[in-house]
Amino acid sequence: MKSKLIILLLIMSGVVMAQDHSEAIQKIYQEQLNNSHAYENLRYLTKEIGNRLSGSPRAAAAVEYTRQLMEGYGFDTVFLQPVMVPHWVRGKKEIARIINSDKLGTYALNPIALGNSVGTGPGGVVAEVVEVTSMQQVENLGEALKGKIVFFNLKADLNLVNSFRAYGGTVIQRVWGASEAAKYGARAVIVRSATNFQDDIPHTGTLRYKPNIAQIPAAAISTNEADMLSGLLQGQDDLKIYLETNCGMQGEKLSYNVVGQLNGSEFPDEYIAVGGHLDSWDVGEGAHDDGAGCVQGIEVLRTFKALGIQPKRTLRAVMWMNEENGGAGGRGYANYVEEHGEKHIAAMESDRGGFVPRGFTSTGTDKQQKQLQKWGKAYFTPYELHSFDQPGGGADIGPLAPQGTFLIGLLPDSQRYFKYHHTAEDVFENVNQRELVLGAAAMTAMIYLVDQEGI
Amino acid sequence: MKSKLIILLLIMSGVVMAQDHSEAIQKIYQEQLNNSHAYENLRYLTKEIGNRLSGSPRAAAAVEYTRQLMEGYGFDTVFLQPVMVPHWVRGKKEIARIINSDKLGTYALNPIALGNSVGTGPGGVVAEVVEVTSMQQVENLGEALKGKIVFFNLKADLNLVNSFRAYGGTVIQRVWGASEAAKYGARAVIVRSATNFQDDIPHTGTLRYKPNIAQIPAAAISTNEADMLSGLLQGQDDLKIYLETNCGMQGEKLSYNVVGQLNGSEFPDEYIAVGGHLDSWDVGEGAHDDGAGCVQGIEVLRTFKALGIQPKRTLRAVMWMNEENGGAGGRGYANYVEEHGEKHIAAMESDRGGFVPRGFTSTGTDKQQKQLQKWGKAYFTPYELHSFDQPGGGADIGPLAPQGTFLIGLLPDSQRYFKYHHTAEDVFENVNQRELVLGAAAMTAMIYLVDQEGI
Repeated sequence: MKSKLIILLLIMSGVVMAQDHSEAIQKIYQEQLNNSHAYENLRYLTKEIGNRLSGSPRAAAAVEYTRQLMEGYGFDTVFLQPVMVPHWVRGKKEIARIINSDKLGTYALNPIALGNSVGTGPGGVVAEVVEVTSMQQVENLGEALKGKIVFFNLKADLNLVNSFRAYGGTVIQRVWGASEAAKYGARAVIVRSATNFQDDIPHTGTLRYKPNIAQIPAAAISTNEADMLSGLLQGQDDLKIYLETNCGMQGEKLSYNVVGQLNGSEFPDEYIAVGGHLDSWDVGEGAHDDGAGCVQGIEVLRTFKALGIQPKRTLRAVMWMNEENGGAGGRGYANYVEEHGEKHIAAMESDRGGFVPRGFTSTGTDKQQKQLQKWGKAYFTPYELHSFDQPGGGADIGPLAPQGTFLIGLLPDSQRYFKYHHTAEDVFENVNQRELVLGAAAMTAMIYLVDQEGI
Repeated sequence: MKSKLIILLLIMSGVVMAQDHSEAIQKIYQEQLNNSHAYENLRYLTKEIGNRLSGSPRAAAAVEYTRQLMEGYGFDTVFLQPVMVPHWVRGKKEIARIINSDKLGTYALNPIALGNSVGTGPGGVVAEVVEVTSMQQVENLGEALKGKIVFFNLKADLNLVNSFRAYGGTVIQRVWGASEAAKYGARAVIVRSATNFQDDIPHTGTLRYKPNIAQIPAAAISTNEADMLSGLLQGQDDLKIYLETNCGMQGEKLSYNVVGQLNGSEFPDEYIAVGGHLDSWDVGEGAHDDGAGCVQGIEVLRTFKALGIQPKRTLRAVMWMNEENGGAGGRGYANYVEEHGEKHIAAMESDRGGFVPRGFTSTGTDKQQKQLQKWGKAYFTPYELHSFDQPGGGADIGPLAPQGTFLIGLLPDSQRYFKYHHTAEDVFENVNQRELVLGAAAMTAMIYLVDQEGI
């Protein structure tokens, strides 16, 4: 009697697991490590289709491809959720030319227009360049920026081991720099690429224009070119650049989230969503960002089917549309869920690249986060995942938070992400098969636990 | 009084650290993350010199380069330790041609001779092929192997998350397959590449001939070709291959371990060695294997100097020679140390690639291993290192074990290593700067702790 009481107390305190899922998780890993479709599906998405900017023909191809893929796997339901997305088009290759350097004379930089940016048009913009490294400096300079090209050159903090924190510290200048500079009459902005790598590769990414402020053109240059430009500006305050970009918004287009579903056997009205975003920038192939998350999400459901596991809850693989330059898919999904009264107990996103998984981030109640940590310790150490206590989730599942959904983010190793992020180098060849597959395995195992035990 | 006693007990029990090294370790990481020379030095070693097989002219260039590099850094002593190394030469490109496939007719495979292998010579070998997947099978077949080419096709176990364990499970057929097959009169062996990747890249690596057994030629083929060959053999038992290799030993050559030293201030007679092996295979550039470990080892000492840290003990950066096909440098270093009475309290090796560090392995007393784990927990979690309890060390520091040296191995993430290992793909471009540098930082931090506190 006494020992039974102790066991009961241990179970209640979480020291003893009610049920041991180690064997099921081992089978999930075995299925992925031996039979995963993730790598081949990613090859198709990236090499046969290519990059997939919202509203583009290739984004439509990706919608059709993932729909057919999930139908082919025999999921219980596969359907499209219509969402209106902005259609931004880069147009003719950008030009940024230093035209009067004391040291170099004229010099052609290699710029990349920022997503959502207006273009200069064929006439371009010629203006003196003023370098800043903070928004405060923009404010301090004020009217001195009138008619100028403002060069935002805040560097990533290399000391931050977590690369996302380094990125997060500088990305504000890419997102808001144009509007902040335009307040004071600047004609355009050039932004240091948001990355902790020092190289020749320019990184695009989204900007946002604030209401009632002139929309001015914006482009990024590589970190090496930013350092060079900064050096030239040290000795010359009338240095001018000719900037020409031919990008712009072309209205809205109809697009879709793609959803595949396995119906739950015990609690069909409780939903668990997992996936990534199907759109990408229009350079490279959107392999890490976020083809990886899409094919991993599909693998979660395919693995359930392959192993003959009937989920207790209803599982959804979701390919969100328009994460990169609007977030319409994430918002649209949350709206759909709310309108249809589909209670989502949890949602998981993989949008940090197809790198070796190190753990999961989460956003939810203390109790939910502790449950995640307990699972982490109990089941994931043999698979080399150790990090379960960082906050997070993801941009596409964030809109579900107000509905009480527990948000989970796959946490891959962050070191290489910003080498490729939003660049021409984000291609299939830079994804490693084992890493991608281990991510899919970890995601499937965690979804399995949430499905089995609830959260 | 009572509280002092408690603190004393806590210190003795290791719960409270006698001294907190967090700040010093932070400075070490900052130096590496902002000012590391590791990546540029690796670029020089791989792109300006290239691969560095023992006894080759480029191995000599690498000796001279690392000697000059460490002298340039102003280390207290830089010297060469002579070692005699085997000089194996690949010669003209290998040929392996299926000559009578019912399905394919003739078909050219893409073989790579195994290191230390004798060659067939220009006449080549033509023989029927017999597939085996274990040494037991070789023994069972016995005389049936006479005159045949034995095809060793044991696959790596993909379920093993740690790639080194998957490699370790199959590498025996590469190392000993030739001699085992030769016992029964086989004429040559073809070996499935030792990797857990499925692709078209053949992997070389060392074989060893057993004494008093005929030395027969040996070559590896890619995992894709191994599967194809296995498929063809299912339906045809008289399938023949023409194998031609032009490799062979060309005697011994004089080469060197390269050693840089910072003298200890308090315990100069206690030595701590750290480094990697300077030689590599003769394909690719020996970037991960093991240019990475060499430049990281040098960075450990350079970082001490850059931060003005005078080591208590004598620190040595060691570039061992001939790890790949003989181990003469590792043995030679241990002999030198013993002869000179240089008590090595610890030695650290980085020879698992320049990937993101996950922890350290070790071989030593229980007390030493617990100390390593304690440091791991106390200092390395913020830097995302979590694994400190696996046994290990390294091939080049192993010979120091009988002298009571505590052996430490850098443990990088293992997932990508066998994509590149011993192939033409082990090039600088496949090394990521942040990962390489984080490895150097972790090594420096751990060497710092061993130097400060002893072990």
